[in-house]
Amino acid sequence: MSDALAIGIDIGGTTVKVGLVTQDGRILDRFTLPTPDFTDARDLVGTLAGSIRGRLDGRSLVGVGVGAPNGNALRGTIEHPPNLPWPGVTPFADWIEDTLDTRCVLTNDANAAALGEMLFGAAQNIRDFLFITLGTGVGSGIVVDGRLVLGCDGFAGEIGHVIVDPDGRACGCGRRGCLETYASAPGFKRTYAELAGLDAPISSTIVMERAAAGEQAAVETVARTAAVLGLALANSIAYTEPEAIFLFGGLAEAGEPLLGPIREQVEANVLNLYKGKVAVRASGLPRGDAAILGAASLIWADA
Amino acid sequence: MSDALAIGIDIGGTTVKVGLVTQDGRILDRFTLPTPDFTDARDLVGTLAGSIRGRLDGRSLVGVGVGAPNGNALRGTIEHPPNLPWPGVTPFADWIEDTLDTRCVLTNDANAAALGEMLFGAAQNIRDFLFITLGTGVGSGIVVDGRLVLGCDGFAGEIGHVIVDPDGRACGCGRRGCLETYASAPGFKRTYAELAGLDAPISSTIVMERAAAGEQAAVETVARTAAVLGLALANSIAYTEPEAIFLFGGLAEAGEPLLGPIREQVEANVLNLYKGKVAVRASGLPRGDAAILGAASLIWADA
Repeated sequence: MSDALAIGIDIGGTTVKVGLVTQDGRILDRFTLPTPDFTDARDLVGTLAGSIRGRLDGRSLVGVGVGAPNGNALRGTIEHPPNLPWPGVTPFADWIEDTLDTRCVLTNDANAAALGEMLFGAAQNIRDFLFITLGTGVGSGIVVDGRLVLGCDGFAGEIGHVIVDPDGRACGCGRRGCLETYASAPGFKRTYAELAGLDAPISSTIVMERAAAGEQAAVETVARTAAVLGLALANSIAYTEPEAIFLFGGLAEAGEPLLGPIREQVEANVLNLYKGKVAVRASGLPRGDAAILGAASLIWADA
Repeated sequence: MSDALAIGIDIGGTTVKVGLVTQDGRILDRFTLPTPDFTDARDLVGTLAGSIRGRLDGRSLVGVGVGAPNGNALRGTIEHPPNLPWPGVTPFADWIEDTLDTRCVLTNDANAAALGEMLFGAAQNIRDFLFITLGTGVGSGIVVDGRLVLGCDGFAGEIGHVIVDPDGRACGCGRRGCLETYASAPGFKRTYAELAGLDAPISSTIVMERAAAGEQAAVETVARTAAVLGLALANSIAYTEPEAIFLFGGLAEAGEPLLGPIREQVEANVLNLYKGKVAVRASGLPRGDAAILGAASLIWADA
């Protein structure tokens, strides 16, 4: 199998990232394409297929894994994605399979990354865990007994859209008070802007620097974010009793100054039955490669 | 297999219920024992074994399933149960196996009942569902892709202890605002007593009768309970995306006058992705036999 490759494709609003990935998680080759250039997804599939064939260089192709926003794992479709140029339902996996004559597995980006954590990251040998992305939004993948939870219709694992305050901030989903409105990078920056009385948000890195320097509004922003997220994660534990919760994405890169308070709030709020049992940790995936590794994991997990 | 039997044992605070159950869910024989009489759980095991042997009447024993509060599915233990006379950790399944020389599977009572719903109730052919008991407390069992979610330590599925209001009612678990403090039968009765200005709670059956007659406090009690539970269930859907949610227990027997408003609140609060997809239904298990059937399901599910 040393010559076999899986393709990992991460479809984002601005860029499609592609990697040729070995079974032990090395990315041998990679390229990107600008998503908005492909107003017809069929053109993207054609271009991807050509580029992939040209780079295989005689090595065997085991399959193609795709992580995409609003990706449906059961149908291999991308459904009504708000930030991609393809309205409606796109049977992306079928098109890849037909064009490249290989297996294609597609799911949403956070689910793919969760699987990447299990195969190549910090969740190796962990059978039950939550993977949470704290980025532009809050995404999640739930692994139970070593398997990704897909749900009856392929859309399980939307912890970012758990409502934590019914009268809270307006969310892009049309409702109010979703966890995402507080624990995403924009939510964190908004909390700081509100507390500091700013007209416009500033970068979360600067907020964390100010918190380290003891600035009151920044310290309070960290505390409030940790309180909201810590309670939501404590509640989440009551569903699948994970052994660990992995935090990934822009905000998680703040490291212990943010993870520490989150961990404390999880412990403070969790049911007695679970106290001291659930590790809250940073993801072990390299940030730049996580999406590609996660997508490739969709193939290697079954190989 | 027509002569084979599984034993279903339901351990409650006042009564131990035992049934001899066929693979198609018929209870051929049954008996009960008073829990408080057995201050040593070994005596209970001995008495159970004797009674079961005496009733087998030549039929083969496939195994013993046990549902118990604080039952741990991974270890077969009953751990620190607040309402049973056995403090600490009791290796109940091991003792049953040693005494009766058969397989014993033990889990918590709500998990067992969830499995019962899948084998003998309304969840037959449903692979992803939530089972919620609205009784003295609020218990839950979560089934993902046809399998009970056990968690890393055997204690998964405590939706009743999701905190819905951090400043809310004191819960028996030591925290505040758990779903159970509002959506259990005592929680429902307390809401009515508060709204009606009563010194002591009255039965939920009477509250439902008053709601049907249009009494303001009773109508409001139904609405508030449905709002709290509906939001909690809508949030729960974002974890495992179940196809159905089954409600069981004293409060659920109020039927459509309560289930209807709960269903409306779930739909009103759920993420767009899940709208119109999740059925909220009454359990299909007969109330009196549910616990025994659930316990026996622990054996028949693998048979």
